[in-house]
Amino acid sequence: MAAFGREVGREPFSRTVCGESILFWRTGDGRVTAMSDRCVHRRFPLSEPPSHLVGDTVVCGYHGFTYGADGVCVAVPGQTRIPRTARLRTYPVVEQDSFVWVFIGDPHSAATLPVPRAPWLDMAGWTTVSGMEPLAARASLLVDNLMDLSHETYLHGGYIGTPEVADTPITTEVDDAAGVVHVSRRMADAACPPFYAKSTGITGRITRWQDIEFTPPCLYTLHSRVAPVGVLPNADGTDPDAFHVEVVYAITPETESSTHDFWAVARDFALDDEQVSDFLRESNRTVVLQDVAALNVLERVLTGEPDGYQELSINIDTGGLAARKMIARLAAGAP
Amino acid sequence: MAAFGREVGREPFSRTVCGESILFWRTGDGRVTAMSDRCVHRRFPLSEPPSHLVGDTVVCGYHGFTYGADGVCVAVPGQTRIPRTARLRTYPVVEQDSFVWVFIGDPHSAATLPVPRAPWLDMAGWTTVSGMEPLAARASLLVDNLMDLSHETYLHGGYIGTPEVADTPITTEVDDAAGVVHVSRRMADAACPPFYAKSTGITGRITRWQDIEFTPPCLYTLHSRVAPVGVLPNADGTDPDAFHVEVVYAITPETESSTHDFWAVARDFALDDEQVSDFLRESNRTVVLQDVAALNVLERVLTGEPDGYQELSINIDTGGLAARKMIARLAAGAP
Amino acid sequence: MAAFGREVGREPFSRTVCGESILFWRTGDGRVTAMSDRCVHRRFPLSEPPSHLVGDTVVCGYHGFTYGADGVCVAVPGQTRIPRTARLRTYPVVEQDSFVWVFIGDPHSAATLPVPRAPWLDMAGWTTVSGMEPLAARASLLVDNLMDLSHETYLHGGYIGTPEVADTPITTEVDDAAGVVHVSRRMADAACPPFYAKSTGITGRITRWQDIEFTPPCLYTLHSRVAPVGVLPNADGTDPDAFHVEVVYAITPETESSTHDFWAVARDFALDDEQVSDFLRESNRTVVLQDVAALNVLERVLTGEPDGYQELSINIDTGGLAARKMIARLAAGAP
Repeated sequence: MAAFGREVGREPFSRTVCGESILFWRTGDGRVTAMSDRCVHRRFPLSEPPSHLVGDTVVCGYHGFTYGADGVCVAVPGQTRIPRTARLRTYPVVEQDSFVWVFIGDPHSAATLPVPRAPWLDMAGWTTVSGMEPLAARASLLVDNLMDLSHETYLHGGYIGTPEVADTPITTEVDDAAGVVHVSRRMADAACPPFYAKSTGITGRITRWQDIEFTPPCLYTLHSRVAPVGVLPNADGTDPDAFHVEVVYAITPETESSTHDFWAVARDFALDDEQVSDFLRESNRTVVLQDVAALNVLERVLTGEPDGYQELSINIDTGGLAARKMIARLAAGAP
Repeated sequence: MAAFGREVGREPFSRTVCGESILFWRTGDGRVTAMSDRCVHRRFPLSEPPSHLVGDTVVCGYHGFTYGADGVCVAVPGQTRIPRTARLRTYPVVEQDSFVWVFIGDPHSAATLPVPRAPWLDMAGWTTVSGMEPLAARASLLVDNLMDLSHETYLHGGYIGTPEVADTPITTEVDDAAGVVHVSRRMADAACPPFYAKSTGITGRITRWQDIEFTPPCLYTLHSRVAPVGVLPNADGTDPDAFHVEVVYAITPETESSTHDFWAVARDFALDDEQVSDFLRESNRTVVLQDVAALNVLERVLTGEPDGYQELSINIDTGGLAARKMIARLAAGAP
Repeated sequence: MAAFGREVGREPFSRTVCGESILFWRTGDGRVTAMSDRCVHRRFPLSEPPSHLVGDTVVCGYHGFTYGADGVCVAVPGQTRIPRTARLRTYPVVEQDSFVWVFIGDPHSAATLPVPRAPWLDMAGWTTVSGMEPLAARASLLVDNLMDLSHETYLHGGYIGTPEVADTPITTEVDDAAGVVHVSRRMADAACPPFYAKSTGITGRITRWQDIEFTPPCLYTLHSRVAPVGVLPNADGTDPDAFHVEVVYAITPETESSTHDFWAVARDFALDDEQVSDFLRESNRTVVLQDVAALNVLERVLTGEPDGYQELSINIDTGGLAARKMIARLAAGAP
């Protein structure tokens, strides 16, 4: 996942994904393009001023090499003949669920791989707040972090953590066929942390469900269900007396040691309440920045470790380890 | 080219050239000396306070090792015997055309190589403004930049660039015998950019000649001729109705990835007009800083590229490629 | 030497020694513990908030792994079974002379090696000021610096340096049996630098003795004796008319290229005079920072030198070279 759709417009916009600098812009008819952010001539970034768009072309700010939306060069300085090889690599793009996805691997494989979905982010009946925080740590540290929410108790106390989170055992299910890792923690009677108390108005203790789904390469969704103690879904699956929040992360490697930490919080209640939106945006951003601070420390620590350092895993790590394995398999080219 | 003569005086002054830290100072009778900026004892820099000059010697600020203008150690602490090997490497120096040149290679080869000339910078009938900007990029990027002025149109619009520069084809001539690369662009009828309009007072369109000479290892001169449209030199070579500007650069590697970007602008008109001097100094510095910003970006880009990345060259690059080749040949020891 | 005893209390405190991040804290009964500052789970630093002490345990701020003073893990989240291998490396510790010492090598060798002593720092009849300055240079540069005080004349003029220091020859004695290097400089008639003039009240010239002892791996003591010219110790060794200052340094490598520069100045006069204490603290800190500035420059210089660069040693360097050799022998495992 490379960007929120709202980030891409009629200015050249660059983001590095898996070490590749990619230029994004919208054509006059609103289509998102993705191409290499390096002019073929001397590798000047097409996102760097004075580079700029002219109609459906982008003009390099150094010598004026000009490219169309298909990456093909259409003008060079001082001569009319354009070299046959003057074209930028382009990337398959899908805009969906408010996200812009690009395919970094062999473009011929792109069509065979489904793009993970997060429909709540762009669906009637839901309201979403979202953002992105740069993380100076390898992506796997954020995968670990999010797949094991027991850390909420320690790192996010006063926001989303309560003692019950770390104390309640989890169940983990790895669905290799569907390519999804599930981690579930169901708390029948727990304290209600401020994040949910202030947004829902619940004043007492709660039944709190955390159902995580991770879909490689990078989409994480926490289906969060909060209700007064004892309130359960109806037999037919309807659940009118609970509050539902979809906490979505896209964990996109920027380089081997830095990550784009995209986050979104969608809710099915208080849909038009700006105060609730402001509160959830501010709270979730604070929680994300607590993770960012801790993981940035961890990245510096790991960089300084000698090769072959050990980590020790316990039950809570099962989901994170499964997710790492699925990503590795995908990166190695397995279907 | 290591320094402007005005930079070297009776304070130890250090500059790194091709990775070597060189100490410059003037003896009592005004001669420039160039020697290693590292005390032979524990390698403390002789340019670092409290190191200082005493008469025609330099005293190390750490333990007081003292050296003459010939680099030979004349005093050490706590003993009268001075080790025979206690001497600093010295460098052949030539001060000429307001520049201080040093020879970095085998000193025995120094005498066989002519020092490139830029006489306008220190000659009656000309007025010069000059400066140096540090560039965080390899020297070859600045060679490329200056040998191909089509970038003026894009990077320096509003200062020295107009559409005609990028549009007008160039002629390139490589004189291997003389060791000079010539690139020439003659615009018969072009817009007059502010740099020339404000300094010469010309109000209409101009005939604009750009005749470049590059002499390895690092001297670049743009012979710039500007006159109202149609005004040409006389048959005898005199040219009283044109304005002549010599734009000189010395492109000196500091390290493999940083460069001293020395620049000077000499003119044969408005010789005593301080306002014109101030305007040209400020304008050219702005243009140099535009190049510095772009090339610093480019250096970071290239550092991040995988080995074997491609660049694509067209006609405008002929001069830069020839200059690179001449420098490489010289560095490899060819005459 | 890892810390002053006063630095270690009931907050987790971390310091890197020889590249190892070590966590220090005091148990409820005041004992100093030293253990690895990396949680065995995902290597989060136990010194990093929100990690914290609970009684005689330290709780990891990321997921709550909890360790006793012996480094053994006593609690993990979400399960009651604690993995057998969940324990932190601990380090032998000695608290003595106001210093906290740790043993970094094979713990079985710790008992066979005596801990160097600096009794004046924590002894009746003496008053001490002390501090630590971080040095961005390899420890051997500080060893060199302190073993050869001729640099006082150049680098510390106006504080502790006078011309006599650099001019007076030294005697060096290497006692391999005791594992001590002695360097001695006895000035019979010298100017009194401000450091001693203002603290002792002596107004004229002085007899100044500098007797250095270096005990590997890192303890340096300068026994400094200052008295009016001609005043010598009595035949029985008593010395009532002189002023004695013990200038102690512990030179502890943080990494290969950075050092903890611990310093202390103990005196046997003006014991309760806060003004003298303030003056000596401020003066010695200034002198230490002059060394730090010079050695930081030198480290950057040496990092940039090609392999196999030369240094040139003279008489004054004998002590430093002997100290380097003793440290190297100890590091190689010799007794």
